[in-house]
Amino acid sequence: MPGSTFGTLFAVTNFGESHGPAIGCVIDGCPPGLSLSQADIQIDLNRRRPGTSRHVTQRQEADQVEILSGVFEGKTTGTPIALLIRNTDQRSKDYANLLDTFRPGHADYTYWHKYGLRDPRGGGRSSARLTAPMVAAGAVAKKWLHEHYGTVIHGYMAALGELPIPFEAWEHVERNAFFAPIADVSLLENYMDELRKVGDSCGARINIVADQIPVGLGTPLFDKLDAQIAYAMMGINAVKGVEIGAGFGSVAQKGSTHGDEITPQGFRSNNAGGVLGGISTGQPITVSIAIKPTSSIRSPRHSIDRAGNPVVVETFGRHDPCVGIRATPIAEAMLALVLMEQALWQRAQCADVQISPLFTTSLSNNKTV
Amino acid sequence: MPGSTFGTLFAVTNFGESHGPAIGCVIDGCPPGLSLSQADIQIDLNRRRPGTSRHVTQRQEADQVEILSGVFEGKTTGTPIALLIRNTDQRSKDYANLLDTFRPGHADYTYWHKYGLRDPRGGGRSSARLTAPMVAAGAVAKKWLHEHYGTVIHGYMAALGELPIPFEAWEHVERNAFFAPIADVSLLENYMDELRKVGDSCGARINIVADQIPVGLGTPLFDKLDAQIAYAMMGINAVKGVEIGAGFGSVAQKGSTHGDEITPQGFRSNNAGGVLGGISTGQPITVSIAIKPTSSIRSPRHSIDRAGNPVVVETFGRHDPCVGIRATPIAEAMLALVLMEQALWQRAQCADVQISPLFTTSLSNNKTV
Amino acid sequence: MPGSTFGTLFAVTNFGESHGPAIGCVIDGCPPGLSLSQADIQIDLNRRRPGTSRHVTQRQEADQVEILSGVFEGKTTGTPIALLIRNTDQRSKDYANLLDTFRPGHADYTYWHKYGLRDPRGGGRSSARLTAPMVAAGAVAKKWLHEHYGTVIHGYMAALGELPIPFEAWEHVERNAFFAPIADVSLLENYMDELRKVGDSCGARINIVADQIPVGLGTPLFDKLDAQIAYAMMGINAVKGVEIGAGFGSVAQKGSTHGDEITPQGFRSNNAGGVLGGISTGQPITVSIAIKPTSSIRSPRHSIDRAGNPVVVETFGRHDPCVGIRATPIAEAMLALVLMEQALWQRAQCADVQISPLFTTSLSNNKTV
Amino acid sequence: MPGSTFGTLFAVTNFGESHGPAIGCVIDGCPPGLSLSQADIQIDLNRRRPGTSRHVTQRQEADQVEILSGVFEGKTTGTPIALLIRNTDQRSKDYANLLDTFRPGHADYTYWHKYGLRDPRGGGRSSARLTAPMVAAGAVAKKWLHEHYGTVIHGYMAALGELPIPFEAWEHVERNAFFAPIADVSLLENYMDELRKVGDSCGARINIVADQIPVGLGTPLFDKLDAQIAYAMMGINAVKGVEIGAGFGSVAQKGSTHGDEITPQGFRSNNAGGVLGGISTGQPITVSIAIKPTSSIRSPRHSIDRAGNPVVVETFGRHDPCVGIRATPIAEAMLALVLMEQALWQRAQCADVQISPLFTTSLSNNKTV
Repeated sequence: MPGSTFGTLFAVTNFGESHGPAIGCVIDGCPPGLSLSQADIQIDLNRRRPGTSRHVTQRQEADQVEILSGVFEGKTTGTPIALLIRNTDQRSKDYANLLDTFRPGHADYTYWHKYGLRDPRGGGRSSARLTAPMVAAGAVAKKWLHEHYGTVIHGYMAALGELPIPFEAWEHVERNAFFAPIADVSLLENYMDELRKVGDSCGARINIVADQIPVGLGTPLFDKLDAQIAYAMMGINAVKGVEIGAGFGSVAQKGSTHGDEITPQGFRSNNAGGVLGGISTGQPITVSIAIKPTSSIRSPRHSIDRAGNPVVVETFGRHDPCVGIRATPIAEAMLALVLMEQALWQRAQCADVQISPLFTTSLSNNKTV
Repeated sequence: MPGSTFGTLFAVTNFGESHGPAIGCVIDGCPPGLSLSQADIQIDLNRRRPGTSRHVTQRQEADQVEILSGVFEGKTTGTPIALLIRNTDQRSKDYANLLDTFRPGHADYTYWHKYGLRDPRGGGRSSARLTAPMVAAGAVAKKWLHEHYGTVIHGYMAALGELPIPFEAWEHVERNAFFAPIADVSLLENYMDELRKVGDSCGARINIVADQIPVGLGTPLFDKLDAQIAYAMMGINAVKGVEIGAGFGSVAQKGSTHGDEITPQGFRSNNAGGVLGGISTGQPITVSIAIKPTSSIRSPRHSIDRAGNPVVVETFGRHDPCVGIRATPIAEAMLALVLMEQALWQRAQCADVQISPLFTTSLSNNKTV
Repeated sequence: MPGSTFGTLFAVTNFGESHGPAIGCVIDGCPPGLSLSQADIQIDLNRRRPGTSRHVTQRQEADQVEILSGVFEGKTTGTPIALLIRNTDQRSKDYANLLDTFRPGHADYTYWHKYGLRDPRGGGRSSARLTAPMVAAGAVAKKWLHEHYGTVIHGYMAALGELPIPFEAWEHVERNAFFAPIADVSLLENYMDELRKVGDSCGARINIVADQIPVGLGTPLFDKLDAQIAYAMMGINAVKGVEIGAGFGSVAQKGSTHGDEITPQGFRSNNAGGVLGGISTGQPITVSIAIKPTSSIRSPRHSIDRAGNPVVVETFGRHDPCVGIRATPIAEAMLALVLMEQALWQRAQCADVQISPLFTTSLSNNKTV
Repeated sequence: MPGSTFGTLFAVTNFGESHGPAIGCVIDGCPPGLSLSQADIQIDLNRRRPGTSRHVTQRQEADQVEILSGVFEGKTTGTPIALLIRNTDQRSKDYANLLDTFRPGHADYTYWHKYGLRDPRGGGRSSARLTAPMVAAGAVAKKWLHEHYGTVIHGYMAALGELPIPFEAWEHVERNAFFAPIADVSLLENYMDELRKVGDSCGARINIVADQIPVGLGTPLFDKLDAQIAYAMMGINAVKGVEIGAGFGSVAQKGSTHGDEITPQGFRSNNAGGVLGGISTGQPITVSIAIKPTSSIRSPRHSIDRAGNPVVVETFGRHDPCVGIRATPIAEAMLALVLMEQALWQRAQCADVQISPLFTTSLSNNKTV
């Protein structure tokens, strides 16, 4: 596919631009018989929605999803599920002057070279707004996975700029604007307020965990489960790094430490992050991603225009000062799409395999990634 | 594809097991008219070959490649190029006792659950030996990319276990067994000798750089160039983390630092690692990967057998005490395959676009990633 | 893909049901810079539209297309083009009684077995209404092919039920409701009027021709150009047979007759139908398809219900008494999509090949297929 | 894929040329645990083998298959199965003079234009010899389908040139060189002897039937089961037409005749050929294909050389005077590959659907297609 379809068996085709009439996606291959309503999808869309706190973009979008097809009398029919989200708060004039300028850190320069033309309105296709349809599709995958395996996929912010965020408890995550697993987020709020004042932005680290995963998802090479996860995560706007399990920490580990020992009760540790040889172990799948600081900042930056002349760029308009703040539901959705895809592959090839699990899989409930 | 084909337009299908009669691959979609001989491919296979120093596995394999199809009178014909490498130094008896045991850190447990049976000889399909065909295919991609764009893809070891390795110069890389960019590798040799003595293993960090990349490779979402690279890298055995450009360092950066400014002479920095909005900028593409310590070690480890009973595993046989040592040509090959694929996609969709580059792309010659 | 995406490089993902809120498609991979407006697409949609004569279904649908994305200031941007067509004349109650019954010749029985449930409103997903988005996508492909190669794709009805239709001239085709290449269609009209009177239906044969095709499209095996065409044609509702060139007539031909001789001025005949070894010759591509009689007829038919009890089915509602009447623009569109796809593949792999054509390609202007 | 891979879940990648060192394929995605030996594959390879009667090419090839991977202790492991067939009877000098000439009816002209160069030895990649690996892969699919559903796929010759062949009984098919379902093939033998005498060739019609097919295989659009079958069949060398069920006969049928009525005991007829709405009905799948006369004949034909000058071509060497004679096992194999693929898709998406068949499926045992 030319890039806009994610997955093969549970194939999500994304379309739209930030300031066009609508964005959306088509999910092809959803198993039939799944109960599905707009409300099921809206939950996660609302978690990702802009304008919900002072720390994110003030663009007002209800992100109301319309199911155009694939559902009959509240059940999926097995045919394509088209999801439509109308854009309602476009302000294209904000961007009129940017058609001729390449904003540093943005896709302006590369789009122009690749396509010979580009839609400059709000970043057009390169806008993080295009993650909304993936969140919608991910909600469908999450629901199916939960019904079939009890799978729960949840994430949290592990660092905001220079501030590492300790893992206190899952229960805090949904109670603050940052998806931070801590009771008191005043430090984070101050940090963001300070950044906005100086017209700058910061990065973030997000951890995502999938609990209750069947053993056996993924294929040896090169569609390893972890390779698919890395692909999905690095495909999210602004992501610059991906780790599975011990990640870069494994470089300095010894084999006698890293290799997770097994007992009749289960694995003793999870340096593998739930994946061995590209295939899920049944332990929690643990992923960590690095999100770069927002490129749209008020501070003046040097750049050039299409004629090659030097210019200074100051970006006003409405932007997230840390795109990582809204990234948690996005990363969850992408992980859900990967797991959904692999669950269907596994049924296709290995439906006849009958191996009883040797032990109950563990949960990530009270530990950090 | 069920996992063994990499790429769509330049599609490499890998087959074989560590101790079966042969391994190999089929390259479908190679442009016609490329001069190609076995020698072109053998160069990189020899760089990856086992048994070339005391720091790697002592298995003796010439890894002699045979071109079975797709080349006529020294030129590629545009039809599938089948490459065959016979295994010659199998010692399957070394592994006979492992059929019933799950080695910690290995794919034994997951293969058994997924497939209901597994080939235990040398890890079967999960062996890093299966990277050899990818190195062979990568050599074809490297050659084509170099002829078309002058692209050079090279890598080096940036850390060996706890030892960070400073970048001194590219010229050192091919002169030592570690692909280390330093003149004196005695520290690394001592470190490895010590590890072998205690029967343990270590991880490594490998950096890979691609110079002379055309602007415009990759697609917005979700086949971003960096997503494809992350997929390719995480698909290599033992890789647990992938970074592009500033990677995890970008979490603590400010937007005013991270976003690479542009001047009429080019980009001022390369935090992007050569990719913006999923599309190549023409700057060097910089990738860094984390390789976990080898799981096969002499030190006793706890595990269970297929009946769920506890066992102690001590792995003898022939193993790399640090699989990262031979990983550099593998990672180069995977990056070459991604770039080749994307170069063909770009011709397919955007062959008519005529944008002159605004400046000459920079090289990575005298800087670290 | 799970069936709803056609093509890989020019990938068209179709969604919707006959009586849902909307139908449509997403075109991913369209080359950038193509001038495109809704009017370009509406032309072919209008040719396929229902309700335009007494010989087709009386369902009233304007089939007005909305471009949701992928076009900026009148040019394609290279990003996904989403096309939406709202359904406006649903009469779902017409079909309420059909949920429990399997109509002979219809997909009711197979959908129910496959998916365990089905949308019975107007055939749901199995309705020929779903060809409208393909006609829309085909219009985009036709435009690009015409601009790049001068390609013209046109079709006509070659038989209506038992009536063979002689080829008189292309100019007649667009002047009657049948796409018949004859000046006087009164025989056809009488035939249809008679059928409607008795509550029966008939089949049709449609021929499609593509003129001005570049040499070299298609790949040896198994994506032969003719294989792709056969796939595309047999994928159209109600098609039961596909021929390329001499088709089934070639069974009784001798090799000395069938093999098209070549002269310095070009091919002497076109038994090949424009394809040799799976690759286009530059001659007109000639395709012929068989369309079965409409299954929805007033005459009573025997069937069973979901409990397995015998029932008698008489189908009222609005139906085409010969679905072949509106099939010509659909078959043209599918051929356009195949050629577009293959044109992009050819650029991807063989852009560097420089072979001058040895002669001018011939046209199909004044001959039948 | 660039054309050489057939299927997605049961993906067969074909490689080789007629006179290169070897031909073969890689099957990726085969379910694990299937008993598989070389003998299982050799049966069908022997049915397709050249040199077994005076009516086919006299090239001597044992077509001995070697399993290089994917099978351990007699069972498939779920990893790629690589199959290798060495070419042993190349006579490349036979073709040396053909490098400069385009043989009428052959792929010479199109390969040269597409790729800019071609392997002329025995037709290179365009040789029907490349169907051997598909027959090998098809044998694996046949075995799996038979074990899972009792599926039997068999074909027969329905016409040899101008001679229609009545269906007498399946038992005759394997007892003559033609796969003809008749007891006495002397008429066919005389016809072929006559053709060889005059240096000409003829076409053939082959029917293929699949019995014991589960209901529900295939997807609505555009991967309809019949579309996939048409693709597979038209991808076989020399095929010019494909019919499903009533095929072109349905053009002149009325709806009241064509639509197969259903009773509590099953379908009353099979005009559908076992497919409704793109999905299998459980009835026998019936396919008919037209095979053009061999293009390589002794009779002189007009053509041109690469410089555009007129030449006369007389083809000596070893050729099948009717490629249709050996086509039956090839067409069976391609149908098996399609059904295998769709069976896995069905498990992937619809494994949870539990609908009991309403009646036993019928067999094609004593009737013609």
